[in-house]
Amino acid sequence: MSYARQMLGTCPVSFNVDAGLLAATIDALNDCAQACIADTGCDLSEENVAEMVRCVRLCLDCADVCVATAGVISRQAEYDPDVVTPLLQACAAICKSCGDACERHARMHEHCRICAGACRSCERACRDLLGASDRRPKHPRPTARQ
Amino acid sequence: MSYARQMLGTCPVSFNVDAGLLAATIDALNDCAQACIADTGCDLSEENVAEMVRCVRLCLDCADVCVATAGVISRQAEYDPDVVTPLLQACAAICKSCGDACERHARMHEHCRICAGACRSCERACRDLLGASDRRPKHPRPTARQ
Amino acid sequence: MSYARQMLGTCPVSFNVDAGLLAATIDALNDCAQACIADTGCDLSEENVAEMVRCVRLCLDCADVCVATAGVISRQAEYDPDVVTPLLQACAAICKSCGDACERHARMHEHCRICAGACRSCERACRDLLGASDRRPKHPRPTARQ
Amino acid sequence: MSYARQMLGTCPVSFNVDAGLLAATIDALNDCAQACIADTGCDLSEENVAEMVRCVRLCLDCADVCVATAGVISRQAEYDPDVVTPLLQACAAICKSCGDACERHARMHEHCRICAGACRSCERACRDLLGASDRRPKHPRPTARQ
Repeated sequence: MSYARQMLGTCPVSFNVDAGLLAATIDALNDCAQACIADTGCDLSEENVAEMVRCVRLCLDCADVCVATAGVISRQAEYDPDVVTPLLQACAAICKSCGDACERHARMHEHCRICAGACRSCERACRDLLGASDRRPKHPRPTARQ
Repeated sequence: MSYARQMLGTCPVSFNVDAGLLAATIDALNDCAQACIADTGCDLSEENVAEMVRCVRLCLDCADVCVATAGVISRQAEYDPDVVTPLLQACAAICKSCGDACERHARMHEHCRICAGACRSCERACRDLLGASDRRPKHPRPTARQ
Repeated sequence: MSYARQMLGTCPVSFNVDAGLLAATIDALNDCAQACIADTGCDLSEENVAEMVRCVRLCLDCADVCVATAGVISRQAEYDPDVVTPLLQACAAICKSCGDACERHARMHEHCRICAGACRSCERACRDLLGASDRRPKHPRPTARQ
Repeated sequence: MSYARQMLGTCPVSFNVDAGLLAATIDALNDCAQACIADTGCDLSEENVAEMVRCVRLCLDCADVCVATAGVISRQAEYDPDVVTPLLQACAAICKSCGDACERHARMHEHCRICAGACRSCERACRDLLGASDRRPKHPRPTARQ
């Protein structure tokens, strides 16, 4: 069981979102950040680096946005849709672009194929959490102690 | 002149957004991240720490989102509105919440007053960049070399 | 298999360190960062937050150092001992302090017990990689293409 | 006056290190991180990107270590030399390598010249803080309230 899952089960806060879904999203965000950071290093080691530039850039952006999103949803006590909704949208969008860019190199570079997979899973996880959040009650009772 | 400003002036990419505005936004994001990280440490040292908890949480989220946003807009070659627009919206929203929380402690704690100021400036900078981006041509010519 | 492990196996660079050991260290660093970020949120939700302050601080430092260390060793092409050795030492030291602080609350707060475990594993992984690096040849042949 | 400087002056903690020196180091770390993040983007836009690869890699590592170091010393309440000393050493070492790599491109690319300057200043600031820390009393009285 991932640390995200273990921690959520023992935290004195309830998030008004299914804990399993939240943990799966955090795991997907962390996996995607790790894949993008590693893929950057691999891309920069390829002979055809000039063709990898766009992929490198998008991996860097994707890692940054995944890390921030994982931080915010890991730590949340109050779920502020004005922050979390656009953040998840931005994250899904960069995962989509980065996944597309990686997929273009997937046949030639196995590391890009794997990174594309991590981006696709993370995009899906962000959209699933967005979908679940849309179904949250509009005025949830406060969940943390302040 | 800030490093953000100096670097933008010497980069082989043009961003289709006024470089001065972009540099001012990056500076505001970095200032806000620094203020929030430092304010977290100060809040945790206060006698009335139990009253500072919400402020700490929001500072942590605000720093994370500012860092990611600064990374994405510092590095950008292609301006992808599907990523940048919601990211700036999320950033403006967390700066608003965090600024409000800090302002509540502004009379009692000078560090919260200063942090509130950094959050307000950053919120404004994000909204200014969002406004400028709305006025960009819908189909900009490619700006980077790939 | 973790993404760190999958990516290392497909990268055109060889690191002069056992790939399994490297991947295990990256996984431990990412797990520890996630546990510390989540534990911060949980600590801040506890009734006795004033007693958790030192734990929160150390978790924040630990997460920062783990993230940087994971980035450097995930991306490495040249292994620069002047950077990697002190970075792993700093990381092992903060994992030790943070693990000790979390352990003090382990009976009262299950989330601190779990976080302590992640810190212990990460400390051990950093020390294992330090040990393996000590046994590397002093003048390795260059491993990346530049 | 930078936010690092303003915040340090209003924080209820005293760090046993000169506040001016600490603030100057935090500013140098943030400047260097920003320069490296921006330089990565500029390097990736250059025609001769294959020659910039090592510079890109080192900028990525340098930014990561600067961000972590700035976080730890911005937030510190207790000064733990087992963490801060090797972290500053790692940071000085990566600033040295990254500064050297950027300097090699300084004549051809103005952005590398500027980034090299930020790396040199940051290396110096880390070494100054290391020097000052060596002169700290061995058993300082506790400075934060716990």
